[in-house]
Amino acid sequence: MKNIFLFTDRMFLNIGVNMKRSFIREILEHTNSETISFAGGLPDASLFPNKALRKSACRVLKQTNVLQYGTSTGYEPLKEKIAEMYTKDGFETTSDNILITSGSQQALDIISRFHSSKKITIESPSYLGAMNIFSLNNLMQDSVMMKKSGLDIKAFHDSFKSTKLAYLIPDFQNPTGITYSLKKREKIANIIQKHDGLIIEDSPYSKLYFKKEYKSISSMIPNHSYHLGSFSKTLAPALRIGWIRASKELIQPLVAYKEAMDLHTNGLVQSLLNDYLSNQNHYDMHMKLLRKKYNKKMQFFSKTLDKELPEFVYKKPKGGMFIYGEFLNINTSLLVQECLKKGVVFVPGIEFYTDNKNRNQIRFNFTNSSKKDVEIGLNIIRKVIEKRVKTKLYV
Amino acid sequence: MKNIFLFTDRMFLNIGVNMKRSFIREILEHTNSETISFAGGLPDASLFPNKALRKSACRVLKQTNVLQYGTSTGYEPLKEKIAEMYTKDGFETTSDNILITSGSQQALDIISRFHSSKKITIESPSYLGAMNIFSLNNLMQDSVMMKKSGLDIKAFHDSFKSTKLAYLIPDFQNPTGITYSLKKREKIANIIQKHDGLIIEDSPYSKLYFKKEYKSISSMIPNHSYHLGSFSKTLAPALRIGWIRASKELIQPLVAYKEAMDLHTNGLVQSLLNDYLSNQNHYDMHMKLLRKKYNKKMQFFSKTLDKELPEFVYKKPKGGMFIYGEFLNINTSLLVQECLKKGVVFVPGIEFYTDNKNRNQIRFNFTNSSKKDVEIGLNIIRKVIEKRVKTKLYV
Repeated sequence: MKNIFLFTDRMFLNIGVNMKRSFIREILEHTNSETISFAGGLPDASLFPNKALRKSACRVLKQTNVLQYGTSTGYEPLKEKIAEMYTKDGFETTSDNILITSGSQQALDIISRFHSSKKITIESPSYLGAMNIFSLNNLMQDSVMMKKSGLDIKAFHDSFKSTKLAYLIPDFQNPTGITYSLKKREKIANIIQKHDGLIIEDSPYSKLYFKKEYKSISSMIPNHSYHLGSFSKTLAPALRIGWIRASKELIQPLVAYKEAMDLHTNGLVQSLLNDYLSNQNHYDMHMKLLRKKYNKKMQFFSKTLDKELPEFVYKKPKGGMFIYGEFLNINTSLLVQECLKKGVVFVPGIEFYTDNKNRNQIRFNFTNSSKKDVEIGLNIIRKVIEKRVKTKLYV
Repeated sequence: MKNIFLFTDRMFLNIGVNMKRSFIREILEHTNSETISFAGGLPDASLFPNKALRKSACRVLKQTNVLQYGTSTGYEPLKEKIAEMYTKDGFETTSDNILITSGSQQALDIISRFHSSKKITIESPSYLGAMNIFSLNNLMQDSVMMKKSGLDIKAFHDSFKSTKLAYLIPDFQNPTGITYSLKKREKIANIIQKHDGLIIEDSPYSKLYFKKEYKSISSMIPNHSYHLGSFSKTLAPALRIGWIRASKELIQPLVAYKEAMDLHTNGLVQSLLNDYLSNQNHYDMHMKLLRKKYNKKMQFFSKTLDKELPEFVYKKPKGGMFIYGEFLNINTSLLVQECLKKGVVFVPGIEFYTDNKNRNQIRFNFTNSSKKDVEIGLNIIRKVIEKRVKTKLYV
């Protein structure tokens, strides 16, 4: 079962209007249920709060109205709870600032559809699902290289001057795991405000910090930002509940798109989540546990990496779900094909770039696999590399 | 509570790329919870199978994997069950022919996005939600007048020759309630096949027949059709589960769009529905009850209409949720504004046309209101009309 959803961390194919079929997707077709996957951005299913969600489901389904049509902006009590979370974090928000979406993938679609045919500054590397939907909505993407503490500011400024729209993932970025420094966040906020532009700040991992939480760029420029949140990584992906937090003026025109696209987000699940979140303590305890467990998983993955693949260069992330790094001279696109034959898979870095450079990087997901699978999987990769002269894995 | 969702039968506003704000939407802002609504296409919430759905929810949430990421085409066992329903109806179908969507509104978006910038033949009047999403996807809509037994065939042929794509609602059409004759269905199927074109056949109401079921046009031309189904009208709208039934060749390219748009449809609710449908008897009994109750509701609405508004000309529908008809000389757009002040609302026919003609028609929803509300509501409309000289309601 575990690998049916091998690449579905919003990690997918490239057949759009003018998109090519993804290498990843073709690989996926050759995996089976025994494949050890470090590829998808899947949460650890054993940590889902099933019991509490089940109680909530049983409770809300006693009411008839949870099954009727709902409003396009989302279920009001749930919007209020999400708004409260922001306010509690020091980012003042009311329910009017929230638009509930079918996961934050849909949020990306709604916003980029509204801004279709414009230019947009993105990180390089970036989240493939965003790049795909931007292409579908005909946005011209301008990539800016990532540095250790976030984007290269000068390059960002140069790009943003002309695009006035940016898509960034400042917390535990996908795929790099990089966290932007506060200084960099402030500089970016200033640039966006100065040019009267907009940021789409994607924050699916923000609450999965190991030590401390980071201030969002959006909160520094509330009238120039779409802040995207999601319960997919914190509670469970199958709930498909994400949201956009923005000023009323920015939210308002998006509602027509949301309505036209699917009327409204799943009402039953919104009610269920609202019930679950009514016990704030539940959620807080769950998040504490999740952070602790994911930190341990990251540490274990890192330790095993250092043992099995000491030549893999990376920095430990401060949260999120990914370890990203590179080999000196291994073509990871070829490597993954060899590894697949041995039953292990990961995402080669090249998939996250708009060009065809960076052939030697890898994104590992550390949240989904068991300790045993991490040990076996990384050991297999090591053995494949040891034969690399034969399999021509040199870059 | 009842009127919060006043117009949400996939009945909504007109702010898109090049769309105007809808008259309806502006009216909506002036309703309150006491307003009697014949406007939205809302099912009768008292008939939702809450208990059985609740049992299913409690059951499926015992498994962890129902909360993990799912596949973009939909949950395999649910697809199989939907396929079986088609096969049972004589339309041979496998799970490969099914793409699960977030309601059939999303199905319309996916298909029309794939066919963006083409021409499309639609009924006049037609479903506003379809017209809106077609506009958003830049489809040029060519309207063909509805007649008593379905579209005008000659006019359809003339249009289809050049569009090669049609959007039709042959069963208990929205808004007119018209059901296409078998002869007309066959003629349309022939035309579509002859010109090697495609039909998008929207069938949210097909299973809500009062006496007999009608053969879908799609089943006559399986390689030239997208057949859209939904559980919104038969089970409950908040589940947001719809689907596209098409040949594998037609389904395949749509999957990339679905993935880019929201990754996959709500997995928890798909599992829940799959569990509910595992007891086929449950569903069959529920549908029998629904047809019987809705037929009675239609008869009651019709009887009350004849008593209160004998000058309203209409034909009883053979299923579905709407009674549609016209006055000889009343501007129903003005009428609804007057009625709204007295606490009753319906949809004036003009909203369902791409032009501004047909000022004297009304769509009444008969499924959602109680007997008492039907009596009070129609009586209020009558009184407003009796004062029509004063309020200038003449066309």
